[in-house]
Amino acid sequence: MFKTLIIGASGYTGAELAKMVHQHPHLQLSGLYVSASSHDANKPISALHGTLKGLVDMPLQPLVNPGKVAEQADIVLLATAHEVSHELAPVFLAHGCQVFDLSGAFRVQGDDFYPRYYGFEHQAADWLEQAVYGLAEWNKDAIATAQLVAVPGCYPTAAQLALKPLIEAGLIDDSQWPVINAVSGASGAGRKATMANSFCEVSLQAYGIFSHRHQPEIATHLGREVIFTPHLGSFKRGILATITAKLTPGTTEAAIAEAMVKAYSQGGDPHAVRLLGNQPARLQDVVHTCFCDIGWSLHNGHIILTSAIDNLLKGASSQAMQCINIRNKFPQMTALV
Amino acid sequence: MFKTLIIGASGYTGAELAKMVHQHPHLQLSGLYVSASSHDANKPISALHGTLKGLVDMPLQPLVNPGKVAEQADIVLLATAHEVSHELAPVFLAHGCQVFDLSGAFRVQGDDFYPRYYGFEHQAADWLEQAVYGLAEWNKDAIATAQLVAVPGCYPTAAQLALKPLIEAGLIDDSQWPVINAVSGASGAGRKATMANSFCEVSLQAYGIFSHRHQPEIATHLGREVIFTPHLGSFKRGILATITAKLTPGTTEAAIAEAMVKAYSQGGDPHAVRLLGNQPARLQDVVHTCFCDIGWSLHNGHIILTSAIDNLLKGASSQAMQCINIRNKFPQMTALV
Amino acid sequence: MFKTLIIGASGYTGAELAKMVHQHPHLQLSGLYVSASSHDANKPISALHGTLKGLVDMPLQPLVNPGKVAEQADIVLLATAHEVSHELAPVFLAHGCQVFDLSGAFRVQGDDFYPRYYGFEHQAADWLEQAVYGLAEWNKDAIATAQLVAVPGCYPTAAQLALKPLIEAGLIDDSQWPVINAVSGASGAGRKATMANSFCEVSLQAYGIFSHRHQPEIATHLGREVIFTPHLGSFKRGILATITAKLTPGTTEAAIAEAMVKAYSQGGDPHAVRLLGNQPARLQDVVHTCFCDIGWSLHNGHIILTSAIDNLLKGASSQAMQCINIRNKFPQMTALV
Amino acid sequence: MFKTLIIGASGYTGAELAKMVHQHPHLQLSGLYVSASSHDANKPISALHGTLKGLVDMPLQPLVNPGKVAEQADIVLLATAHEVSHELAPVFLAHGCQVFDLSGAFRVQGDDFYPRYYGFEHQAADWLEQAVYGLAEWNKDAIATAQLVAVPGCYPTAAQLALKPLIEAGLIDDSQWPVINAVSGASGAGRKATMANSFCEVSLQAYGIFSHRHQPEIATHLGREVIFTPHLGSFKRGILATITAKLTPGTTEAAIAEAMVKAYSQGGDPHAVRLLGNQPARLQDVVHTCFCDIGWSLHNGHIILTSAIDNLLKGASSQAMQCINIRNKFPQMTALV
Repeated sequence: MFKTLIIGASGYTGAELAKMVHQHPHLQLSGLYVSASSHDANKPISALHGTLKGLVDMPLQPLVNPGKVAEQADIVLLATAHEVSHELAPVFLAHGCQVFDLSGAFRVQGDDFYPRYYGFEHQAADWLEQAVYGLAEWNKDAIATAQLVAVPGCYPTAAQLALKPLIEAGLIDDSQWPVINAVSGASGAGRKATMANSFCEVSLQAYGIFSHRHQPEIATHLGREVIFTPHLGSFKRGILATITAKLTPGTTEAAIAEAMVKAYSQGGDPHAVRLLGNQPARLQDVVHTCFCDIGWSLHNGHIILTSAIDNLLKGASSQAMQCINIRNKFPQMTALV
Repeated sequence: MFKTLIIGASGYTGAELAKMVHQHPHLQLSGLYVSASSHDANKPISALHGTLKGLVDMPLQPLVNPGKVAEQADIVLLATAHEVSHELAPVFLAHGCQVFDLSGAFRVQGDDFYPRYYGFEHQAADWLEQAVYGLAEWNKDAIATAQLVAVPGCYPTAAQLALKPLIEAGLIDDSQWPVINAVSGASGAGRKATMANSFCEVSLQAYGIFSHRHQPEIATHLGREVIFTPHLGSFKRGILATITAKLTPGTTEAAIAEAMVKAYSQGGDPHAVRLLGNQPARLQDVVHTCFCDIGWSLHNGHIILTSAIDNLLKGASSQAMQCINIRNKFPQMTALV
Repeated sequence: MFKTLIIGASGYTGAELAKMVHQHPHLQLSGLYVSASSHDANKPISALHGTLKGLVDMPLQPLVNPGKVAEQADIVLLATAHEVSHELAPVFLAHGCQVFDLSGAFRVQGDDFYPRYYGFEHQAADWLEQAVYGLAEWNKDAIATAQLVAVPGCYPTAAQLALKPLIEAGLIDDSQWPVINAVSGASGAGRKATMANSFCEVSLQAYGIFSHRHQPEIATHLGREVIFTPHLGSFKRGILATITAKLTPGTTEAAIAEAMVKAYSQGGDPHAVRLLGNQPARLQDVVHTCFCDIGWSLHNGHIILTSAIDNLLKGASSQAMQCINIRNKFPQMTALV
Repeated sequence: MFKTLIIGASGYTGAELAKMVHQHPHLQLSGLYVSASSHDANKPISALHGTLKGLVDMPLQPLVNPGKVAEQADIVLLATAHEVSHELAPVFLAHGCQVFDLSGAFRVQGDDFYPRYYGFEHQAADWLEQAVYGLAEWNKDAIATAQLVAVPGCYPTAAQLALKPLIEAGLIDDSQWPVINAVSGASGAGRKATMANSFCEVSLQAYGIFSHRHQPEIATHLGREVIFTPHLGSFKRGILATITAKLTPGTTEAAIAEAMVKAYSQGGDPHAVRLLGNQPARLQDVVHTCFCDIGWSLHNGHIILTSAIDNLLKGASSQAMQCINIRNKFPQMTALV
């Protein structure tokens, strides 16, 4: 049994992680932590997340001495704010823990990325360089030996899983930028009290137009410029991405299907991507599951891709768990289906 | 044209009032005010409530000197917190304004009511005594000459409009307390950022069990003990109350219908109550309207009443407007349908 | 491995059952059936219920010859209409199958019950008499040896789990009927196309006032008259019941708590009831779980109980699975948490 | 007072029209009609649409003899199916009525359009040619003298109001097709009982990809190819369109703003478009209003436009009413604000 900690366990992602670790046959939930100043410190996690009552009633301990806490752990899940992950990861790594970071702190290489998009200078250049991007279906080999896995953001997961097979196969025309429109449920903003997040204010709308930090994350890992427009929707969970792209001249339905099947056959290993062919992805087919559904249609030299995930699962916690499974040679979908 | 002010105009009720005053043929919207410390001060109301853009773009002025502001006003609507109304109403009344208070500050007589249920000692005993309870369909004569109208709470409006005709007609058995279950949309909690109010935390549940201050408001004005259980529902607007009561032995369907019709014939004057007979009230028939729908069914000596309103309209702003109309001899439903 | 069939597998409950059987370590999903005339016949279940894609893609076979199908089965789950269960159960029972019926066809004894509430004469009096009511936490011993288990309705489960401990302990006053108000999500009406069920028509409202067949089911199994008012809410899953009752004079908080704990200690065996004490049950804590949350508050000789379940799980499929587990000596919560 | 009829008055749009005509100072609601075979025939409209109770309780008459009915009417609103409008419009026009058709039957010129996109051959070529496209803010002069107005579809209204000012000003690059993603509430599918429309099946998803008939309607009236992807969202009312387009090289923020202001200054005449500048349009600001909110942002030679309307109002009924007002020289927003 691997001793597993969740840092930043008070949020929605933390609660999902706690449930998964609890259900995992080879992991032992060894501790839940929140920042020392959190007013949730010392409460049982189930007091915040009622679904966990009777399953996980462990307290949220204040994280006072990360170095000491690290000594008890084999695996550490960081469901913390970007800046906090940026500080904590090196501490846990120094103690030899495997670290799976769900924040944006180690996702993108490049000197000016963190100052520009996250507002801080990155102080852990070595770890940033060593970090493996945990897009599970695409980076299995690297994840299998990584000490630090940077689990992708929710929008980037939905977008890349749909686009990457086609870009890798050379089927997306370079002359136009793919247009990615995505709608996320309100849990994407995290567990917090803000006006924008209050029940009566949530309404379908775009936000972060031309300025969301998931745009460079997507562009970097696709190796391709994209136009990404996130939206808030009035539902709790899930992301639907609709992607419009110009195809390389002469691209056929068959070529698209072949690229998809090739990307996701994965040597027969069960994973989290489900291909729908010409059917559009539907949010409710993936919510409360760890799957990403992908559909596509061609017309007049263009393709519309639809890609749906549960933002808290495949967009965060279940993808982290896939990475843990891959890293530790468990079947990839352990505790996920 | 009557010069009309709205104090506490940043909230959901304030926005509804602004729209109604704007549409009213005999009222002139003369000012919108918020507390001097509000971070919404000096913003146009339409920056907070986008539906008003192009209709009412007047700024939310900080209320620094109420006595001076009172000089510009014929009619004042207080959509303020209870304690604030309690302080402001006497100021506006002293200047001869008609005051329509949507808070609980003047709704219930009795020495220990305010300390016990609202946490403050009432300092305006005279005005409390003179205040008329603005349940429009029941207190028309008193409203018509009142200087201070205490507009009823949202739950009390839904509950009383259904029960009062039967209690007045002696059809409700005294030996058992009517059971009032009501579900309100999240706007009932007002426009504010709290965890309980955040999109992902709102879920159907009871709250304030045996302790909500609308229970004594209902009991006082019905002259009858009741058991009232409020619930929060995951929708924005509306209240549905389901009321179960024991009938006086021998009460017939016909007697119930007669009592209802008698109460709401109102001399042919159009008003806000719609009687549905044996059909249950549905939330969506009343949301975004000023109406209260009431249905009922009898069986085995018991009655189930259902009563539905829009909590922001008949449960607050449109009832206030009915009172303004009655007070100033305008047709009662002016600006409401 | 027990060969397990699901009859009526096209509905929402059928889909939940298919997933649970698939995940169960001792059950083998041997067949999914729909009525021979169903237009869903021969489609994979995952074509109707997208969440199952990649997990359960088995076809929905038309049920032409139940007697022959029975030969392949150890355990049969009937998620069929009442009349259909009434006809099919004896066929499967005659072949020695264990039958778990999720319809109302075997829930209530008494000569005139089925003609009056279900519109048909019961033709299987012997089986009706032998059927065990599958309220898992209350009938474990009988379920453990039953061949036919009548799984309770969704509202009756929520209501009885809260009231039964207090009635059994003699704490509920006989002179007044408990008032049960409950709100169900739209999935309670099943998977079908009706105007009442269409997205834009669903709205919070009472229905079946004084006439719903779950009222006599509750009353029979509690041995106590009740007033039950079901409501439709505009959400997909879940039931919240709010129950108001008069207490036997002198009943204390401690007595209530003791009765609850006694009922649900269950000899330490994990089960599906979670006691919240004075906290109200919240829908979102139970939706997508197999739990029933129960809270209560006392005042002035009355009690308000709140009880929340997922109508498709503890109100149907997961309760059926608890019964299968009990019947076959598996740990009761196998495949459920 | 102009005698006004609504044909096809049982649907959601019909109900909105009935309310508006009822509130209009110069229109008299002279009759509500449904098809002779409708099972809603002879019911009061308020039995179907509870919000209308006490306001419009007129019966839905079966339309048996349109020619005779036409004799009573000055103005006819067709809220009927495309084929039905196609047959009825000429009858009413022949009697000299003004006809405002909310279907697609007269919106697009061109020989093969109706067979291809609507499945019928158009039999009224003359009227099709004379029909004026009722995009109110753009076709005022033509509407002012039209006998037949083809009120635009909901998606085309949202899309064109945002794009048209920029295309007319030559600011949208020709070499790439603008990408229009739009999400509509479930009322867009009309008032009917289908599985796809049932409460538990509605979920965020794209549909009609590359095949929706609003694509050619938009393209025709913009004079520009576009890629249009409609989506269903799990809410009742409203459309949000997010439009991504490449700008003509050198286009500045100022040029965009100037084009928008020029298009919608409208000589100071109040109308239904509200310009938000760099703020994104939000669904809840327009739902239950007659407005279209438009926001935009520029970056790297591209523009993202957001455009929000209430699909039943500006996307159907209130736009029809704007056309009636324009046609009859009433202030354009009469009965709308």
